[in-house]
Amino acid sequence: MSTYAPQNPHLPFGDQRTAPWYGKSIVSVNQFSREDLTYIFAVAHEMREMVVRIGTFDLLKGKILANLFYEPSTRTSSSFTAAMERLGGSVIPINEVKYSSVSKGESLPDTIRSLECYADVVVLRHPQKGASALAARYARKPIINAGDGAGEHPTQALLDLFTIREELRQVDGLTVTMLGDLRYGRTVHSLARLLSLYNVKINYVSPEVVAMPREIIAELEAKGIPQAEYTALEACLPETDVLYVTRIQKERFENPEEYEQVKGAYVITPETLKAAKERMIVMHPLPRVGEISMDVDDDPRAAYFRQMEYGLYVRMALLAMVLGKA
Amino acid sequence: MSTYAPQNPHLPFGDQRTAPWYGKSIVSVNQFSREDLTYIFAVAHEMREMVVRIGTFDLLKGKILANLFYEPSTRTSSSFTAAMERLGGSVIPINEVKYSSVSKGESLPDTIRSLECYADVVVLRHPQKGASALAARYARKPIINAGDGAGEHPTQALLDLFTIREELRQVDGLTVTMLGDLRYGRTVHSLARLLSLYNVKINYVSPEVVAMPREIIAELEAKGIPQAEYTALEACLPETDVLYVTRIQKERFENPEEYEQVKGAYVITPETLKAAKERMIVMHPLPRVGEISMDVDDDPRAAYFRQMEYGLYVRMALLAMVLGKA
Amino acid sequence: MSTYAPQNPHLPFGDQRTAPWYGKSIVSVNQFSREDLTYIFAVAHEMREMVVRIGTFDLLKGKILANLFYEPSTRTSSSFTAAMERLGGSVIPINEVKYSSVSKGESLPDTIRSLECYADVVVLRHPQKGASALAARYARKPIINAGDGAGEHPTQALLDLFTIREELRQVDGLTVTMLGDLRYGRTVHSLARLLSLYNVKINYVSPEVVAMPREIIAELEAKGIPQAEYTALEACLPETDVLYVTRIQKERFENPEEYEQVKGAYVITPETLKAAKERMIVMHPLPRVGEISMDVDDDPRAAYFRQMEYGLYVRMALLAMVLGKA
Repeated sequence: MSTYAPQNPHLPFGDQRTAPWYGKSIVSVNQFSREDLTYIFAVAHEMREMVVRIGTFDLLKGKILANLFYEPSTRTSSSFTAAMERLGGSVIPINEVKYSSVSKGESLPDTIRSLECYADVVVLRHPQKGASALAARYARKPIINAGDGAGEHPTQALLDLFTIREELRQVDGLTVTMLGDLRYGRTVHSLARLLSLYNVKINYVSPEVVAMPREIIAELEAKGIPQAEYTALEACLPETDVLYVTRIQKERFENPEEYEQVKGAYVITPETLKAAKERMIVMHPLPRVGEISMDVDDDPRAAYFRQMEYGLYVRMALLAMVLGKA
Repeated sequence: MSTYAPQNPHLPFGDQRTAPWYGKSIVSVNQFSREDLTYIFAVAHEMREMVVRIGTFDLLKGKILANLFYEPSTRTSSSFTAAMERLGGSVIPINEVKYSSVSKGESLPDTIRSLECYADVVVLRHPQKGASALAARYARKPIINAGDGAGEHPTQALLDLFTIREELRQVDGLTVTMLGDLRYGRTVHSLARLLSLYNVKINYVSPEVVAMPREIIAELEAKGIPQAEYTALEACLPETDVLYVTRIQKERFENPEEYEQVKGAYVITPETLKAAKERMIVMHPLPRVGEISMDVDDDPRAAYFRQMEYGLYVRMALLAMVLGKA
Repeated sequence: MSTYAPQNPHLPFGDQRTAPWYGKSIVSVNQFSREDLTYIFAVAHEMREMVVRIGTFDLLKGKILANLFYEPSTRTSSSFTAAMERLGGSVIPINEVKYSSVSKGESLPDTIRSLECYADVVVLRHPQKGASALAARYARKPIINAGDGAGEHPTQALLDLFTIREELRQVDGLTVTMLGDLRYGRTVHSLARLLSLYNVKINYVSPEVVAMPREIIAELEAKGIPQAEYTALEACLPETDVLYVTRIQKERFENPEEYEQVKGAYVITPETLKAAKERMIVMHPLPRVGEISMDVDDDPRAAYFRQMEYGLYVRMALLAMVLGKA
């Protein structure tokens, strides 16, 4: 499991020190086994039920989260803040690191070792790949990776998978189709890796210039995951259980006209969905900018706003776990 | 009353679903009847008494406010934060929307539908007129307009009126004199509209170039409100019960010399107040930049800092109401 | 003691009005007697024990801190936020004053008098010397100076001294050696002044261009404090109990080569510490940028991260004191 157990664990007040995730950092999707995911999703599901029933509860009362964002990400930052507050904990919001003396030449390990004097857990968003692993190496308190540049964003991948589980009750046996920019989107890479722990089929639909990287396809092939590539959605839509849509950025194309030619083919409309299963779900990491028509929003298959909400439950679960309260 | 009742009300945990304001959005002063105001001010008055007696209480414990500011406004943002915290609730502060991916092309409805996954109520400050109404149309949770550009800032108008009520015990029968920039100040427009629900007389004192817009004067005339316009304060000051001062911005004048000529005539000093009633109150939406001399601050008629405090109580009342707890 | 007792004390709800620090502002190290320090450190020590035992407690439940930062300072701002939250209180974070209408021409007294309508205590960081004293003069609620430009940063000096007391059990009898930029660092100036209330010896080690100012040396001499100046650490290191390291900024030197020549002599390495006492402590106000090698971090004498933590306890103590709860 995790290789990020603290070297020198600082054991706070009254926590369940035997809890398996207590004090651990969440750095990469690679640290999770299928059993880990089952456990995380069971806790997240409980969180969901508690929020629906009573809204907020005091599981983490008295605990403090340092929400350390070196680059802005309103959605992720708000989601962690809400997760901590719904568990009765408090948040130190640190959003302006770039303007601040903390960043003026101070090393990330120093910043982390200062902040952990005040907080019980640190959520870290940083533009540099590997930043969270570095932070976790020096920290006595758990670090949760909220995105490290071209690296990973493991809580996004977890919430994506949790969405599938909650919406469709299972993951095994499903056909997941990923659509859009599969080359640069770290979201789809991490999700593909997590899905490879299950019995799934994965379709990739994208313009060639932004196709899924060869190494990821090879990695999943080695695990026996059936995969197929397409440049158009029509062929694989009817068999799809989960349609995961991402944005194609114009800047990825050398030739702007080429972009204009293809972009329409990757927009989801009510018309598109006519050929889809009735129980299919449409996901998107958001923000969307035209990839899914607003006319789709009222279709019960449109799961992307519910997906945001599942993110809350997953983050609540992770916070409770690493603080020894789940 | 409100036309902003949610289409698809999301009914959270244990709220009083029969409360008349439960789930409603606060978008415009036009949504309030006189009875509504009486109710809001009664709740706000109770909030005042509670704060004076015990400071803070747990009416909204477990509730979360997303304080979504697309443009900075320290005073309004702080006031809503304090209101939520004095009621035992929590706040997700979102102040950097402009730098954030949320704003990069994402539509306001999408941003709102994401944030309401985390929060129970959204306070929205946005530079665009109509933004709050748009947000309220899509939101399942209540939206409170904290200023939408050239549009409205209804909680400011409510706190202005509540200040008058608390300081002078009544609104009917009063003479309110508005001074300064009456053309571009949305504050005085909204206040004039709310005052038109009472039996008041309104005087407008301003340079001609920034006079009260004709359409507002016509609107109030149609409701039978006696109004009079002046370019100097002297003539109407003695009869005034409420002197509402606003700032005149140099930029409004084509000719800078013209500005220099007039500006002195609109500055309130202890000398000015000699001709005023002993029970008159001086109000100002703040910040002031010279319109009221600091020598006036110790005069008991100087109500502008108390006005800030009344704003706290009004915002506490509104939050409690739309969350079904008042 | 303090000359900052409020002129017009606003007495909130149920506080112990007889508490000696109730309602007082913390503006300058000059306001403290040795007895004051003894009291503050006794309270801070209690806070430390409480945090270690139970993490958080509700001493300031229902109290609100306005954390007003006109310039960013992640560390100080986070420390006060954590201090308030560990005591069960709430925080209004105000970090973007520079972008905001509050700053557009509004005077500091007006800003303070607005914010104190919402909060019970105001922590103020401001680029201008004397800003906190000005704020305290107008405020009805206590102001805590979190740094006023070239002026003071009294809570830093208090936490420095508290660190010495907690780490070495006493202050009397110690030899404190200050190293680095002693001319421009307000930290060492304030600490020297506080130390002058005890029986200590102080060594100053720095390049001549950034030597301790004559007036401070004279001030301490008048109080009978033995002092000595050096340009190299070797001579005084063996007798040192507290080594207080600060950063030397290249910009302070007229000649960049001169800087390159001297800087190495002021870097602390494991090699340096071989000549030091076994019970000596190394302190640094952080952030460091190379003045102390990371190899030193694992040495038990490296007290600089513990120093951050002591800052939390001192700020908890001060908040509790000025709110009448200690």
